[in-house]
Amino acid sequence: MENNVKPANGKLGILIPGLGAVATTLIAGVEAVNKGLSKPIGALTQMGNIRLGKRTENRYPKIKEFVPLANLTDIVWGGWDVYSDNVYEAAVNAEVLERSLLDSVKAELESVKPMTAAFDKNYAKNLDGTHVKTGTRLDMANELMEDIKNFQEQNGLDRVVVLWCGSTEVYFEESQVHQSVVAFEQGLANDDKLIAPSMLYAYAALKLGIPFVNGAPNLTVDIPALVELAKYTETPIAGKDFKTGQTLMKTIVAPGLAARALGVNGWFSTNILGNRDGYVLDDPDNFKTKEVSKLSVLEEIFKPEINQDLYGDMYHKVRINYYPPHGDAKESWDNIDIFGWLGYKMQIKINFLCRDSILAAPVALDLALFSDLAKRAGMSGVQEWLSFYLKSPQTAPGLAPEHDIFKQLTKLQNTLRHMMGEDLITHLGLDYYQDVVDAM
Amino acid sequence: MENNVKPANGKLGILIPGLGAVATTLIAGVEAVNKGLSKPIGALTQMGNIRLGKRTENRYPKIKEFVPLANLTDIVWGGWDVYSDNVYEAAVNAEVLERSLLDSVKAELESVKPMTAAFDKNYAKNLDGTHVKTGTRLDMANELMEDIKNFQEQNGLDRVVVLWCGSTEVYFEESQVHQSVVAFEQGLANDDKLIAPSMLYAYAALKLGIPFVNGAPNLTVDIPALVELAKYTETPIAGKDFKTGQTLMKTIVAPGLAARALGVNGWFSTNILGNRDGYVLDDPDNFKTKEVSKLSVLEEIFKPEINQDLYGDMYHKVRINYYPPHGDAKESWDNIDIFGWLGYKMQIKINFLCRDSILAAPVALDLALFSDLAKRAGMSGVQEWLSFYLKSPQTAPGLAPEHDIFKQLTKLQNTLRHMMGEDLITHLGLDYYQDVVDAM
Amino acid sequence: MENNVKPANGKLGILIPGLGAVATTLIAGVEAVNKGLSKPIGALTQMGNIRLGKRTENRYPKIKEFVPLANLTDIVWGGWDVYSDNVYEAAVNAEVLERSLLDSVKAELESVKPMTAAFDKNYAKNLDGTHVKTGTRLDMANELMEDIKNFQEQNGLDRVVVLWCGSTEVYFEESQVHQSVVAFEQGLANDDKLIAPSMLYAYAALKLGIPFVNGAPNLTVDIPALVELAKYTETPIAGKDFKTGQTLMKTIVAPGLAARALGVNGWFSTNILGNRDGYVLDDPDNFKTKEVSKLSVLEEIFKPEINQDLYGDMYHKVRINYYPPHGDAKESWDNIDIFGWLGYKMQIKINFLCRDSILAAPVALDLALFSDLAKRAGMSGVQEWLSFYLKSPQTAPGLAPEHDIFKQLTKLQNTLRHMMGEDLITHLGLDYYQDVVDAM
Amino acid sequence: MENNVKPANGKLGILIPGLGAVATTLIAGVEAVNKGLSKPIGALTQMGNIRLGKRTENRYPKIKEFVPLANLTDIVWGGWDVYSDNVYEAAVNAEVLERSLLDSVKAELESVKPMTAAFDKNYAKNLDGTHVKTGTRLDMANELMEDIKNFQEQNGLDRVVVLWCGSTEVYFEESQVHQSVVAFEQGLANDDKLIAPSMLYAYAALKLGIPFVNGAPNLTVDIPALVELAKYTETPIAGKDFKTGQTLMKTIVAPGLAARALGVNGWFSTNILGNRDGYVLDDPDNFKTKEVSKLSVLEEIFKPEINQDLYGDMYHKVRINYYPPHGDAKESWDNIDIFGWLGYKMQIKINFLCRDSILAAPVALDLALFSDLAKRAGMSGVQEWLSFYLKSPQTAPGLAPEHDIFKQLTKLQNTLRHMMGEDLITHLGLDYYQDVVDAM
Repeated sequence: MENNVKPANGKLGILIPGLGAVATTLIAGVEAVNKGLSKPIGALTQMGNIRLGKRTENRYPKIKEFVPLANLTDIVWGGWDVYSDNVYEAAVNAEVLERSLLDSVKAELESVKPMTAAFDKNYAKNLDGTHVKTGTRLDMANELMEDIKNFQEQNGLDRVVVLWCGSTEVYFEESQVHQSVVAFEQGLANDDKLIAPSMLYAYAALKLGIPFVNGAPNLTVDIPALVELAKYTETPIAGKDFKTGQTLMKTIVAPGLAARALGVNGWFSTNILGNRDGYVLDDPDNFKTKEVSKLSVLEEIFKPEINQDLYGDMYHKVRINYYPPHGDAKESWDNIDIFGWLGYKMQIKINFLCRDSILAAPVALDLALFSDLAKRAGMSGVQEWLSFYLKSPQTAPGLAPEHDIFKQLTKLQNTLRHMMGEDLITHLGLDYYQDVVDAM
Repeated sequence: MENNVKPANGKLGILIPGLGAVATTLIAGVEAVNKGLSKPIGALTQMGNIRLGKRTENRYPKIKEFVPLANLTDIVWGGWDVYSDNVYEAAVNAEVLERSLLDSVKAELESVKPMTAAFDKNYAKNLDGTHVKTGTRLDMANELMEDIKNFQEQNGLDRVVVLWCGSTEVYFEESQVHQSVVAFEQGLANDDKLIAPSMLYAYAALKLGIPFVNGAPNLTVDIPALVELAKYTETPIAGKDFKTGQTLMKTIVAPGLAARALGVNGWFSTNILGNRDGYVLDDPDNFKTKEVSKLSVLEEIFKPEINQDLYGDMYHKVRINYYPPHGDAKESWDNIDIFGWLGYKMQIKINFLCRDSILAAPVALDLALFSDLAKRAGMSGVQEWLSFYLKSPQTAPGLAPEHDIFKQLTKLQNTLRHMMGEDLITHLGLDYYQDVVDAM
Repeated sequence: MENNVKPANGKLGILIPGLGAVATTLIAGVEAVNKGLSKPIGALTQMGNIRLGKRTENRYPKIKEFVPLANLTDIVWGGWDVYSDNVYEAAVNAEVLERSLLDSVKAELESVKPMTAAFDKNYAKNLDGTHVKTGTRLDMANELMEDIKNFQEQNGLDRVVVLWCGSTEVYFEESQVHQSVVAFEQGLANDDKLIAPSMLYAYAALKLGIPFVNGAPNLTVDIPALVELAKYTETPIAGKDFKTGQTLMKTIVAPGLAARALGVNGWFSTNILGNRDGYVLDDPDNFKTKEVSKLSVLEEIFKPEINQDLYGDMYHKVRINYYPPHGDAKESWDNIDIFGWLGYKMQIKINFLCRDSILAAPVALDLALFSDLAKRAGMSGVQEWLSFYLKSPQTAPGLAPEHDIFKQLTKLQNTLRHMMGEDLITHLGLDYYQDVVDAM
Repeated sequence: MENNVKPANGKLGILIPGLGAVATTLIAGVEAVNKGLSKPIGALTQMGNIRLGKRTENRYPKIKEFVPLANLTDIVWGGWDVYSDNVYEAAVNAEVLERSLLDSVKAELESVKPMTAAFDKNYAKNLDGTHVKTGTRLDMANELMEDIKNFQEQNGLDRVVVLWCGSTEVYFEESQVHQSVVAFEQGLANDDKLIAPSMLYAYAALKLGIPFVNGAPNLTVDIPALVELAKYTETPIAGKDFKTGQTLMKTIVAPGLAARALGVNGWFSTNILGNRDGYVLDDPDNFKTKEVSKLSVLEEIFKPEINQDLYGDMYHKVRINYYPPHGDAKESWDNIDIFGWLGYKMQIKINFLCRDSILAAPVALDLALFSDLAKRAGMSGVQEWLSFYLKSPQTAPGLAPEHDIFKQLTKLQNTLRHMMGEDLITHLGLDYYQDVVDAM
């Protein structure tokens, strides 16, 4: 199958709606890495390796040496934002990276200036953007397509990916206008308010056959209309909501408890953070979108419907608190009430002093590079193998997502192995111990 | 292949050297479960289920309904101890389970009286046993074999498993006498002090073709002589050191960090506990044995040799503190210093308020039942698929153990699937998304 | 002055509005102590001692041997509640104390049956009481006075104290009807809805010259009308809001930081609890009352107005979360962001696994016994020396309360010394080091 | 009495044995403050205020405006060290302060060059100093006196203070040579190895009438010979062991528990730190000195001898772990097992992410300035009012030290009030509530 993956020749454009903390941390970081000033820690595509073959073969190539990925030096950045700050200014405001690091890539960052954003204040009440497009939804969608094409031409790009790093929009559920490409395009023409701004970006990208990644918990590309469009234009999509911080820890720890059949009767999660994301989430409507995304993970991992005695009475509560003293240094505290043998109670407390954008940036990078890979490998529509990076992974209709990060990792790694014609790994390993053994 | 697994007919004897906190919690618990008073939480063999086939098939049978395991009601208990207390008395002293629960199975517990132990105070300086065998090591080994045979006959048992739940012995490394069955048997005859008491139990069991499980970090069965004997008598062995508490958490969390290529430059682990195990470990020689077992897990999971930038400078320190106020309610606190994108630092603090014996008892039960299953399935020697339960899993010579609990779980589950002729699961799952796909 | 304190002869009635978790834990505990089954840990009046004279004199009598307090065996219990359960039933429902302890004092608890409560659902929306008085506020106040007099006569009591242990009422601020006794009594006659139920109890008690203690953050006795009434009838009052759990820790730790001139730029406090109190506080209007009480303590201790550089930018946030798995085992987690020398940042995390009613019961007992003492010592009106026990201490008009628990303790102890004619303690102690020294 | 305090005219020399992390953080900090670059947070002498008179008077002057202290701009720095690095170099190595801050005061720091140290490797096995004096103890003592006199003359100083910021010496107890000035001076002449290097500095200072402060847990000035010498030369002494980090928290929290008569049955304290102090303490003999200092505080605060029911069975354990990843960012974790009403158990966990030298520097500054004040106020010998800053305060023979930080603060503040002729504060405050009241 490896013959089918096209090489990563030429330049890759990464276009980002929302040039805030995550996007600027990503861009500044890649530029610093390209100058040899720092390392892209946390990015599997750059730092990770993958086991191939039997354990005794000792084959652990770097992922970027195993599959044909775009080089970091071949990336060209662009984006849209409701503020007109260039990426250097936005990065300084975000207060994530040290000033000295930003200054070392100042020229590169200043050259990335946002295009005007497609925006509707009803979807983010705590934001006051002025650097915005006007006109109907159809106008905005068309402008976005023009933006993309201009960006591609001006920079002589071979390929482009669109990567949503914007804010969380208010909570709403899908309706008629989201059910098919036809209905959606009719909605654009009617300037239907039920089409969220993020959907305009996704539509523009997919219409042009450009992969779209959704880093926020917004509905965006997770609607039948855009899934249909992705299949039609043979374009990969991946969403939704970068899995970082507390949810990352949760999908690490919960599978461990489930693995050992330890019961859980309560899980309380609280977060404190002081960046723009925290400010937006201080609005209950926006928090609702996030909460739904955060609450679902435990249900799937614990499967109370088939583990009634262990997880049938679990009480799960998630809170996010805007707390300015911490800025981007998001911190979570979890109290987990578990029970073991004969129902005896135990507790786990996890305090994660993390950094929101530091965890998100490499996830965003990997999703962009792997989406580009998927496109070149001829894969289209929902990329469930990228669920490893996402709080609310999209799946085929009727298929429950896997939230267990280790199953997600196995899925990702076996997909790469499959793509390159290597044996899948099952960890059976009886052959190490037997003279004659059936093939795995 | 399922035709090759013999059914679990008749009674299963479980013989335990060391009727302390773990053993009495196990025995009292199983008896309480058999009376319908409680549930065997934490035991995969009793509470766990296993996915079979594709996700859309929705097949999740209980493990005990999938593979032929001994019923809990078919278990007969016995054991040895350096104290003469019966199991009821020992359980009361251990202060793990509530008195009311113990009283509800008092008759069953009182009927289990320890046989005299094979003991050498040099291996556990903080213990003062008087209920012990005398004579040379050969004498003791022969007596143990007699004990086992008598136990089997008197109780009309179909099968037996020996399950070490005794204390941690002092640290020592293998020497000449441990290299072959011949050397070992010569050592017994010479009353060689380098043969630890725990090895006598293992030898006695294996000589009789009885599976042996090692729940402590002692060398015991992890020497060439006894591995050779196990192969010769076609007997499964599993060791060493029940994976509970802090190490359990470590092998859950570390794979999560490694999965995301997050760097680690320090991991500090401290424990406080006040039970007999803690008292024995207050002796530096005994702690050394435990420390070696506890330290190794991170090295294997992080593989610093191939991930130099991420884990090459990791400082790992483990401390155990005897702290009587907590009794069996062992508590751990971990500080993990990690770094992400561009080297930015973050911290994770995990405080696990656990219960030592409550976590160990179901692990001991599963290992006993799965060892019995392995014997009936014709598997012999090292059972790496049981590494899921062990801090320092035995492996084939030259093969590094897997410590990642999720790889261990996959290995265990795929072994069960393989044993019963079901498809192995790889989590590839591309077929959910494609019309035509190769069979996995 | 000691001659002026009347002895504690005869029986003391303690009448409690709100026979919930705190009250039943208090009553059951005192009865268990009286039977020699347990110890009144946490009650200064019972367990505490007080230093008298110079350190070298080594005089540390028990407080109860130093000042004339009512004996626990001379207490007679009574109360009101919106539910008709007797104290045994209410204690079982509260799930604070073990059943075996409750059963050992079952007869004593069953004999305490609530009188019908003065209630208005507008003040506690999450409660559904049926065991309530009807009629106007004036009717209810008169009935409460009858209740008190009957209780006193039927039990042959020498003295009575009324101790509010009921729920938190909704937040409101004082208005015209609360400004004088005259206005208040007019309001009763008019059935003015601005008179909260808790005020009716306070009015009834004070009218009869009976000390009133307010354990909730309700306005209750903290209004000019009732302070005036207390002075008029020469009756002590103490309020408001028992200081337990997180606020207790806060008023311990904050003075320590202030003592050392360490700056604070953020203090985040979260709580999880699952008892009736937590359920009532899940209503935002009731939480508001609690929040105001909880937020004020740091302001006073840190005095940002005179310590601008240290505390001028402090961000303080308090959250309470209803979390059923924990029941009465309230748990708090605090993150404190501090800064030291040259502004360098440090953090303190405090996780308090406490028990709400276990901490509150001895506080309630002390306040009842000390209020009775104050009455016998001829003290009336606001008892600021009892601020030690209270989250929002009442003070004289224009006088800021002290929240520093150590200043509060000094105040309490020096008041007792003053009452009994002992030297006040200043900790100057230069005389230990000098031959000739001025008197302290 | 205020007339007796001499003004702080002229320059004050501060001479520091041990120019390591604490000393360099102190010096660099004061220089940065003098340039207006930063603030001396944590120093009561600079940031603190003191209440005078009644609460309603609202008088809270800054301490430095209330008592005549040396100005920071009048300080001249000097010191000794076993390494020859100047203070800039030593500060860079210590890795406490940011490079940019150090560079802003580089010239000032470079000008402070250590004199050769009096050293004996037997007292600090993990140190390898080469910048040391040779000769007998008498030779070294004489040289130190010459050093001090030269420093004073060359810099035209009005007054000098010697401030020990050196390492922890090995544990030993006082013996014959420490019992009197005569025996001590005989010991110097005999080059008695029982005289620790730190004692030579103290002797040299006191002989010259210069106040000596002991920031380490070493015996040093806490021996009869040097107390006698201090009285004889009318010189203040203060020791021992700067109270920072975990012990600071302990003496804040323990008084709070004791205040409320909450029982404690276990207190486990662990520390991780990676600076030179941590490295020295990795030697068990040096740790022993620290451990004795750290363990004593709880005994005194809880007074188990008179509070048997509450603290009679308390198990207290302190651990210090060398952990390089944290450098100077010392971190402590405490688990406190408490019990309340009827013996019900609760737990407190405190995780203090602190910075060793950041907490110690202002303490060192205050002790130096207050010792200088004491000298000018005519106070000599042990200054118990400075126990506020010390883990193991010296006291008069037969007088137990106070460890409760709030009693220590009251003592300090009332001493200052007494010194300046202000009323002592007792917090009685009955006069706010009564028309006629006895004087406090």
